[in-house]
Amino acid sequence: MELWYTEKQTPNLSLSCKITKTLHMEKTDYQDLAVIDTLQYGRMLVLDGMVMTTESDEFVYHEMISHVALNTHPNPERVLVVGGGDGGAIREIIKHSTVKEAVLGEIDRRVVEVSQEYLPSIARALTNPRVTLEIGDGIEHVRRNKGKYDVILIDSTEPVGPAVGLFSREFYQDVYEALTPEGIMVAQSESPFVNQDVIRMIHQNLTGVFPIKRLYLASIPTYPSGLWSFTIASKKWDPLQVDPANIRAIDTKYYTPEIHFGGFKLPQFVAELVNE
Amino acid sequence: MELWYTEKQTPNLSLSCKITKTLHMEKTDYQDLAVIDTLQYGRMLVLDGMVMTTESDEFVYHEMISHVALNTHPNPERVLVVGGGDGGAIREIIKHSTVKEAVLGEIDRRVVEVSQEYLPSIARALTNPRVTLEIGDGIEHVRRNKGKYDVILIDSTEPVGPAVGLFSREFYQDVYEALTPEGIMVAQSESPFVNQDVIRMIHQNLTGVFPIKRLYLASIPTYPSGLWSFTIASKKWDPLQVDPANIRAIDTKYYTPEIHFGGFKLPQFVAELVNE
Repeated sequence: MELWYTEKQTPNLSLSCKITKTLHMEKTDYQDLAVIDTLQYGRMLVLDGMVMTTESDEFVYHEMISHVALNTHPNPERVLVVGGGDGGAIREIIKHSTVKEAVLGEIDRRVVEVSQEYLPSIARALTNPRVTLEIGDGIEHVRRNKGKYDVILIDSTEPVGPAVGLFSREFYQDVYEALTPEGIMVAQSESPFVNQDVIRMIHQNLTGVFPIKRLYLASIPTYPSGLWSFTIASKKWDPLQVDPANIRAIDTKYYTPEIHFGGFKLPQFVAELVNE
Repeated sequence: MELWYTEKQTPNLSLSCKITKTLHMEKTDYQDLAVIDTLQYGRMLVLDGMVMTTESDEFVYHEMISHVALNTHPNPERVLVVGGGDGGAIREIIKHSTVKEAVLGEIDRRVVEVSQEYLPSIARALTNPRVTLEIGDGIEHVRRNKGKYDVILIDSTEPVGPAVGLFSREFYQDVYEALTPEGIMVAQSESPFVNQDVIRMIHQNLTGVFPIKRLYLASIPTYPSGLWSFTIASKKWDPLQVDPANIRAIDTKYYTPEIHFGGFKLPQFVAELVNE
């Protein structure tokens, strides 16, 4: 018997993985949550029918949402992840010895608990003494903590349902105010092949909020098109002006000092998306 | 009624596209050949059940297999494409005004004819007076033309069936001899996520044949994992030593002078594949 999981990535495109079994399925207060075991990519976390992360390619997303900003800031001490309940971004953040407190602001407690049970290689840092779990509305947490954070990472699902607010100009203004005067934010910003409207929307909504904003790319096989974008916005520090000698040596599988800069080298059609 | 085309990219992974109709299907002397119309990616050329190219993402593959080598060579006049019967690489090559002759060495005449009929935006350059069609065995063509070419592009399928010979050390030695003393070759070299064995094999088989060899990457949504590699091997000119001011201005959608260098910035796990 063959079992396959299929994600309809768009109405006209789907990706399927052969699975050995379902490890967990439930309907939480916020979403359908599943962990399945795939032969191609290992264990896979699925929310509302969309692949969130897999054991075999999660390193790309989690390293790339974290290390570009953390190496752009000269001394990141307090870092917030909005969303990201699987803990992968937190695991990367605490690789930086400068970080004194990494806060996870995840709305769905069950994502955290199920990740800790079934995806320990991703979630393992959530019990680190430098990590604080804040189960609740990330937007509210950002509003309540003005001037607190050096770096804020928006590790959200796509802009549908509860995540819509995480892509609005009002939220970006709140993020700006939750940051220190040298603060930096990064938002996952979808695929430049499939979600050009989202990239443009994020870019427009950040315009006038942060003085510096840039798009960078990374390859994530289990996301639509395999090419993913991140948008970094900064008050003072430009990720392209980092001195390579100051990039902290950390154990990674994707990110390197060369990739730090290489990710910003955009294909022509992507550059045209964000050139105003 | 919904019609879907599914490619089993590996035994455990598949990509599916909704189609409106099949435009052409035949069994040629060499392979199963089909052109189908997909809603996500436009018309798609399929050989033996594998996506070769689509109207909407072909520009990435064809620009990236061509322009890196053509801009590394200071004056490419004679260029050979082995395989590549759809004509996309040829279309990019003749954008370089230095090129006096672009030769297509394709074994299957029907790939050329069907591409001209159903994929004219890709195949349109095949009738250019600077283009020569050589229907026949590319390996034989390479052996018969010693010292002729400035650039040779190996635009092959994956190393199964008739394409196996195009990945051997003997073939790379023949390519070396078919090149001028300043010649350069590029081979498509599969996905660093899915085909690590192929990348390693190509790299090993080129070792000792060419003094300079490097891997570079590009994002192609319809190929397995969405991340694709190319291997460039050169007698004299290093693609990383190109003066950006000498990169010829050509009309592209992916390749840029920044991407010329950015494609060589490898993620850590890819760098480890090719570091000896």
